[in-house]
Amino acid sequence: MPVPGPGYSITIRVEAPSSASAAGDLTSAVGRVGGVITAFDVVDSHADRVVVDITCNALSANHAKDITDTLEVLPGIVVRKISDRTFLMHLGGKIEVTSKVQLKNRDDLSRAYTPGVARICQAIAANPEDARRLTIKRNTVAVVTDGSAVLGLGNLGPAAALPVMEGKAALFKKFAGVDAWPVCLDTQDTEEIIRAVELIAPVYGGINLEDIAAPRCFEIEARLREKLDIPVFHDDQHGTAIVVVGALRNALRVVGKDIEKCKIAVCGVGAAGSAIIRLLLRQTPADIVAVDVDGIVHAGRDGMDPNLVWIAEHTNREGVTGNLHDALVDADVFIGVSAPNLFGAEQVATMAKDAIVFALANPDPEIDPIEAQKHAAVVATGRSDFPNQINNVLAFPGVFRGLLDAHAKTITDSMLLAAANAIADVVEGDRLNASYIVPSVFDSAVAPAVADAVRKAAADRD
Amino acid sequence: MPVPGPGYSITIRVEAPSSASAAGDLTSAVGRVGGVITAFDVVDSHADRVVVDITCNALSANHAKDITDTLEVLPGIVVRKISDRTFLMHLGGKIEVTSKVQLKNRDDLSRAYTPGVARICQAIAANPEDARRLTIKRNTVAVVTDGSAVLGLGNLGPAAALPVMEGKAALFKKFAGVDAWPVCLDTQDTEEIIRAVELIAPVYGGINLEDIAAPRCFEIEARLREKLDIPVFHDDQHGTAIVVVGALRNALRVVGKDIEKCKIAVCGVGAAGSAIIRLLLRQTPADIVAVDVDGIVHAGRDGMDPNLVWIAEHTNREGVTGNLHDALVDADVFIGVSAPNLFGAEQVATMAKDAIVFALANPDPEIDPIEAQKHAAVVATGRSDFPNQINNVLAFPGVFRGLLDAHAKTITDSMLLAAANAIADVVEGDRLNASYIVPSVFDSAVAPAVADAVRKAAADRD
Repeated sequence: MPVPGPGYSITIRVEAPSSASAAGDLTSAVGRVGGVITAFDVVDSHADRVVVDITCNALSANHAKDITDTLEVLPGIVVRKISDRTFLMHLGGKIEVTSKVQLKNRDDLSRAYTPGVARICQAIAANPEDARRLTIKRNTVAVVTDGSAVLGLGNLGPAAALPVMEGKAALFKKFAGVDAWPVCLDTQDTEEIIRAVELIAPVYGGINLEDIAAPRCFEIEARLREKLDIPVFHDDQHGTAIVVVGALRNALRVVGKDIEKCKIAVCGVGAAGSAIIRLLLRQTPADIVAVDVDGIVHAGRDGMDPNLVWIAEHTNREGVTGNLHDALVDADVFIGVSAPNLFGAEQVATMAKDAIVFALANPDPEIDPIEAQKHAAVVATGRSDFPNQINNVLAFPGVFRGLLDAHAKTITDSMLLAAANAIADVVEGDRLNASYIVPSVFDSAVAPAVADAVRKAAADRD
Repeated sequence: MPVPGPGYSITIRVEAPSSASAAGDLTSAVGRVGGVITAFDVVDSHADRVVVDITCNALSANHAKDITDTLEVLPGIVVRKISDRTFLMHLGGKIEVTSKVQLKNRDDLSRAYTPGVARICQAIAANPEDARRLTIKRNTVAVVTDGSAVLGLGNLGPAAALPVMEGKAALFKKFAGVDAWPVCLDTQDTEEIIRAVELIAPVYGGINLEDIAAPRCFEIEARLREKLDIPVFHDDQHGTAIVVVGALRNALRVVGKDIEKCKIAVCGVGAAGSAIIRLLLRQTPADIVAVDVDGIVHAGRDGMDPNLVWIAEHTNREGVTGNLHDALVDADVFIGVSAPNLFGAEQVATMAKDAIVFALANPDPEIDPIEAQKHAAVVATGRSDFPNQINNVLAFPGVFRGLLDAHAKTITDSMLLAAANAIADVVEGDRLNASYIVPSVFDSAVAPAVADAVRKAAADRD
């Protein structure tokens, strides 16, 4: 059963009698309907009445309403106001543009703006590479979306995608000092998206594509990589692939297996699944079997798009057919980036000894991790309330920090692999175990390690 | 003769003998070749030698070299390093993206990013107007250029225009708390510029067009105003027009004339000149005579573009022909946004009594202001080293502050006029005189007054 998390946190202001038992009545009422209280603050007090802010986590809008309803019918209690902390946090947006230079007097103005700035413009016109020295291009990334695949929510459009892009920009700054800016495009036409990104590119040192639906995302990324002289990185593909490959490296260390001898079942061949397969292939596993809603991907299957054809050509050496359950038999590793509740403990039991299960569908995994643990040696999910959370935040800030520092014009699979290994290696020898195969997202060593690995890989390329 | 300004400020590090006369030798050498010393710092000292940083303003690169050369040949002096303070200020760019929310722990992350952010996205998808409440759209403006008319420097392209756009963004924040972001487009095709701005619009509450060449700028602005549901403002047109009309209101107060009885000569009919004429016409002056490189604009002239045809239809009631000098005869007001050194004191003498001369060409005005003062009652320029500087910084921050606060979907001439009057009215009764017709750019009362006027004009419209 899911646990109420801080993603849905409300503060309920109530007026209650000042009796000794009132606080206990309130908290036990919340607890009875499954709310998790995280703060209890008396904000005003009179001889006979107190005003209390109860902050608690809930599961959903309905659950929040249940909690409030429960309080309202308690004798002597008046619910005054309900505030949703997540909405409060978003008021006015999450990022801002600030000046790095002082503008206090005429001297400052004359240098930062006219007439002084004219010489900077002329220097860049004469030597375009100077843009990386004298402008924000040096440290700035565009976070580009068309709003067609927002989180797991689907096609919400560009305006509704903006809060995600703002959050991403905030994370870029927090974890790697990168200035990132949301570009939410009011089109879902492949050609228009490509052209728009080309047109805005002069300001940026890199492009992070985000929440763009497959298969459109593959063409957009490939064409932009050809056209632009700055790196283009689709986070839903490569960010996920980096963290998965890094986590798998450590999971294999835990069970003492060599990837070259492993059979890997990958469920889901959208943006994330395809990128994971491509990056895994660089490490030559014994075999990969890809599965989607139509079953196992194999060379003989009809009606495959170019992406599936490529996957069929490069995986499934033995030409296995069937469904997900067939793919799991004797597999050493399962990696799911697909849909909730696709299998149970009995299918994990058919996997090879010391099986590794990465059930990454969000918010609900392909298999309940508690069930998976019955037969698997290592289990990871995308959830923050379970060990081994596979979270892109481990990858993208450090990756772009490294790319910007290296003045990279492109991004290669070697850089992605270097980033994956760097994440894995942050978990050092004796900290590594089945419940700790990836570092915490708040581990401040991660982004610098990833950046350093990417910088070195970029330098090796030059 | 122009005076060295802080726009070209260098710091020269020299090693000099520790003798009592060394400092005097250095400063007098700089002064001899026309450098203006603004700081003299001893950074290191030994028994026989000192290391000194001399900061001074120069006129140009050649002048800076003259100054350095002069120091180098002084006996016992070694020039170690020359730093250009304007370039130093630009290293790494002038703006950054910062997070407004705390991201210290898992709770913060769960609300600012996944899973909490999903509910914000869904709320906006269900009610698009919520984007103004829950995202940066509420306070954010795009500063859009194609780099085709950068300052007075011409077509330098999008990358070289970026330092100006960054400076503008810094000013937006400093003077009005507006978050502004540079959009430097890698195209100079009218249709592509229009489409690109449409595509990026979801993130923004307003569009500030900047340094886009005429006549392309007119069509781009007009078409975008039709297409978008956020205000579109071309600063080179309307920003300049607002400050000119505001300054003229006060200049007319100084000389005690009524605009409805004034004949106004406008020289230059590009972006700025055309917008000035349109805003002046809203105040029904006795007549306006427009002049460009081909002479006075009149209905009988051949080969006029649509902009000139419109101007010919709405100005020059008496059908005057000839050149700029003809236009000046009996004019009450001259407004120049054209080219340097077009006329002298003798032409000002032909103007009406108590003439007003706004010679705004940058960096060198249509007439030397000292010359103009011989016969004019009020003189203004675009220069910061002369009274009455006409500077767009007085307008654009407050204008967008007002538009954003009002959730304006469009911008009208009434709002522009309200902004102009607000700037004029900041100079109250007894502060107003021929040398003080516009407030200082650092007057903190200006932006709030302009914002307030625009907000009210927007509300009147609703």
